[in-house]
Amino acid sequence: MPDAPSVPPLHPDAAELAFLLGTWIGQGHGDYSTVSPFDYREETSFWHVGKPFLAYGQRTWALDDGRPLHSEAGFWRPKPGGVVELVVAHPTGHVEIAEGTVVGSVVSLASRVLEATTTAMSVTTLHRRLVVERDVLRYTLAMEAVGQPLQEHLVAELRRSTSAG
Amino acid sequence: MPDAPSVPPLHPDAAELAFLLGTWIGQGHGDYSTVSPFDYREETSFWHVGKPFLAYGQRTWALDDGRPLHSEAGFWRPKPGGVVELVVAHPTGHVEIAEGTVVGSVVSLASRVLEATTTAMSVTTLHRRLVVERDVLRYTLAMEAVGQPLQEHLVAELRRSTSAG
Repeated sequence: MPDAPSVPPLHPDAAELAFLLGTWIGQGHGDYSTVSPFDYREETSFWHVGKPFLAYGQRTWALDDGRPLHSEAGFWRPKPGGVVELVVAHPTGHVEIAEGTVVGSVVSLASRVLEATTTAMSVTTLHRRLVVERDVLRYTLAMEAVGQPLQEHLVAELRRSTSAG
Repeated sequence: MPDAPSVPPLHPDAAELAFLLGTWIGQGHGDYSTVSPFDYREETSFWHVGKPFLAYGQRTWALDDGRPLHSEAGFWRPKPGGVVELVVAHPTGHVEIAEGTVVGSVVSLASRVLEATTTAMSVTTLHRRLVVERDVLRYTLAMEAVGQPLQEHLVAELRRSTSAG
């Protein structure tokens, strides 16, 4: 009885997102019309288990005292024709389905489903854009929430610190 | 600039789910009217970052050859009055919001939101029940999916292998 899962090779259908694999560390800046601007450190990991998706976990913490800020977890599902589906759970009480495209090493996604638990605040739209150049990952995230118009919320630049094949 | 997040003490609002903390390993059985019964190994972890929720990751693999089966990731949010909110992302292309109660060390949740990506199969209801007795966690999961009636899908018994405080 295997006491740990086997690690099959990368699934061919996941190859289109292979440029994301690894652990990325860096820094970001946050802004929103309802909060003070803030800066953060971030660690984001993409890994695979031999199936046609990448698993994904992210966490950020404050530059000044290291207190944990946001985190999220989910799965990236590449589909034929350069389509990408993303499912994410947020500890703020939100779940997100985003769909879009991967072209080269640029992923652009818009939320199609954003649902909140009974006690969570309203978030209505998220737009995500990730660009990888070799070992640098830059992303932006725009958000429409709490009655405010869609606006840039996060911008970050991360460097690959470990690769995962 | 802190290169890793600090690890604050458990948030008091998360204390009601503290009995879940740790890594749990064990075995489960799956059944559904549309598939052959199957047995699996499982590793499930609950951890905290000093905020009023527990983070959660789960993966299962086949008893025979260790090939990865399911996985999921999300966050458990205890709320006043014994209420629990759960947000989960599934690599099958689903996001789930489940809400229910914790009474002692029994958590019972029913899905309130189950949404699928464009290419994912239909899953309409999930009922989760977890019972912890000291270092044993037993759970059942009932599912209504692909036009079938709600029925027991998974039952498993896990043992706590590491605690996380």
